[in-house]
Amino acid sequence: MPPASAATAASLVRPAIATLAGYVPGEQPQAGKWIKLNTNENPYPPSPAVARAIAAAAEGRSLAKYPDPLATVFRVRAAEVLGVDPDWIICGNGSDDLLTILVRSFVGEGERLRIAYPSYILYRTLAGIQGADCEEVMYERDWSLPEAFVSPRDRLRLAFLANPNSPSGTLIAPEQVAEFADRLPCPLVVDEAYGDFAEADCLELVRRCERVIVSRSLSKSYALAGLRFGFAVARPEIIAELRKVKDSYNCDTLAIAAATAAIDDQAWLADNQRAIRATRRRLTDAMRALGFDATESQTNFVWCTHAERPLRPIFEALKARGILIRFMEYPGWGDGLRITVGTDAEIDAFLAVIKTL
Amino acid sequence: MPPASAATAASLVRPAIATLAGYVPGEQPQAGKWIKLNTNENPYPPSPAVARAIAAAAEGRSLAKYPDPLATVFRVRAAEVLGVDPDWIICGNGSDDLLTILVRSFVGEGERLRIAYPSYILYRTLAGIQGADCEEVMYERDWSLPEAFVSPRDRLRLAFLANPNSPSGTLIAPEQVAEFADRLPCPLVVDEAYGDFAEADCLELVRRCERVIVSRSLSKSYALAGLRFGFAVARPEIIAELRKVKDSYNCDTLAIAAATAAIDDQAWLADNQRAIRATRRRLTDAMRALGFDATESQTNFVWCTHAERPLRPIFEALKARGILIRFMEYPGWGDGLRITVGTDAEIDAFLAVIKTL
Repeated sequence: MPPASAATAASLVRPAIATLAGYVPGEQPQAGKWIKLNTNENPYPPSPAVARAIAAAAEGRSLAKYPDPLATVFRVRAAEVLGVDPDWIICGNGSDDLLTILVRSFVGEGERLRIAYPSYILYRTLAGIQGADCEEVMYERDWSLPEAFVSPRDRLRLAFLANPNSPSGTLIAPEQVAEFADRLPCPLVVDEAYGDFAEADCLELVRRCERVIVSRSLSKSYALAGLRFGFAVARPEIIAELRKVKDSYNCDTLAIAAATAAIDDQAWLADNQRAIRATRRRLTDAMRALGFDATESQTNFVWCTHAERPLRPIFEALKARGILIRFMEYPGWGDGLRITVGTDAEIDAFLAVIKTL
Repeated sequence: MPPASAATAASLVRPAIATLAGYVPGEQPQAGKWIKLNTNENPYPPSPAVARAIAAAAEGRSLAKYPDPLATVFRVRAAEVLGVDPDWIICGNGSDDLLTILVRSFVGEGERLRIAYPSYILYRTLAGIQGADCEEVMYERDWSLPEAFVSPRDRLRLAFLANPNSPSGTLIAPEQVAEFADRLPCPLVVDEAYGDFAEADCLELVRRCERVIVSRSLSKSYALAGLRFGFAVARPEIIAELRKVKDSYNCDTLAIAAATAAIDDQAWLADNQRAIRATRRRLTDAMRALGFDATESQTNFVWCTHAERPLRPIFEALKARGILIRFMEYPGWGDGLRITVGTDAEIDAFLAVIKTL
């Protein structure tokens, strides 16, 4: 048999996959000394309770056994912290896993996913994999959302709203989100990956609006991007449907133990939030002083545009000096720099370089 | 707004999900003293190198950073062990993750997945989630496969063959699998979750047959069911398509480190294989002496049927005495007991009870 070619492989997979570009995550250099301000990782180590929980969970024959398919120990602790019932929570291998489960649960081939734009690029990829249409409703220039976000449309099955949003770092107030949810003809997923850095969140809406689903991640606010752990909160009837779609053992024993230890340490979270918010303030003010437009961020990054200066050369010059930030281009919208809130020392180093450019 | 009912939730998700029963994994009691011979977990702890690798990977700020999306360190080491190129390997959050990725990549709504039956129940669930048809080709009574497994059929996009198979524990020889692959009008996934316990495997076929994909798991043979780590081997052109469908960071930092340490310790694997095979021999012979028909297992479990005795009462009686095995009923085929090869002490305890029944 002749060797397979890329054309052969493309002819074997679904057309939706063959034509898909594939989601490209931010650069993760595995070697070298970089100041990484490009993927919104928390610059501090996680709670010390995390490493202890991991060591205990790795002992003896513990890993030889399958994990609890429902991550009950985490759900019970998270439920106490968040003030919901454990049956309203489903856990995932990072919140990306939950976003995938949500699209697979609600949106069939040829159906429609609505998203706000610009936002998390993965949403479009997930619709593409599913063979579904992705309808992008563009934010206003002040990052508010137009009426079009709630308008009826045929085959519309699900809507995603990152809140706070990336790349803008802005928040739509929960009252406004509730109004969207009530008017939308389909369920609304509020992706709160950055929710712990914001002034308000939409968790309460899950109780009030029956078709609201909130997803959360431990990657950013708990400094556990490497662990892959997220969860979603929704009515138990919806959770029951999502459980059918998730892999039985989607969360591993170490991640369940570590995530439980992390969410249990709310004092650590409060300290970390304080530190991130203080550095965020400093970074925002410094960028404005340099002539950039910076949104008032509700996340652990700052989104900067500039009325006159082209931004790509700034990104490239920083990279050449070992500092990675994210240069983002959104067709129809424009471009910008997304700068993760690092440690004070990292932000000082970043500012020292950008001032010279 | 009125409280959501199950009927409302069912009306929001795709019909394929609403009508799905959902896969039910084997019982995982979280408390109490059980002898667990029901989910094919390895009865021994993993290589001691695993816990060391996990502790090192959990240190400092390591978990705050995203993992390598391609688990390169694992792929490089596995490639050396298996004699393939790293670009021929894709890693997953357990081999279930890879089976999910494969179905999503190849089989669209209304298309067809072919599987041998009885086999791993998850295959049918994955087709169901995708809204695809699942065609079950029944094994012969001697667990060989009929011609129907390779016959052309419209909309047939992918075939799954668990080899060795569960629940039978039997192996179809690689030469026979190669013939199937060459005649099948679609790619063939050879699920080698139990491959490390068998006399032969199909890894070599990936090179010879361009449409063969082999999947492996570290859950059973490396005693790491709790870790969730598996991988698939295929031509790089196919791997490139599968990468588009996987979650970007589907394997976490701890799992990548632990899996790399595990596959690096081939001496541990050889010792473990010896122990499992010796106990398997003893269990098989003992069950036959008790009047059961037991297949010649190529896995870490033994499949037993009985010409006269009903089997469910045996399963129930064992459970009442704290011993969990798996009672399996396959419509159109019959039932049987699937008994995981435990430690010698566990198997002695099991045999002591079953002899009294």
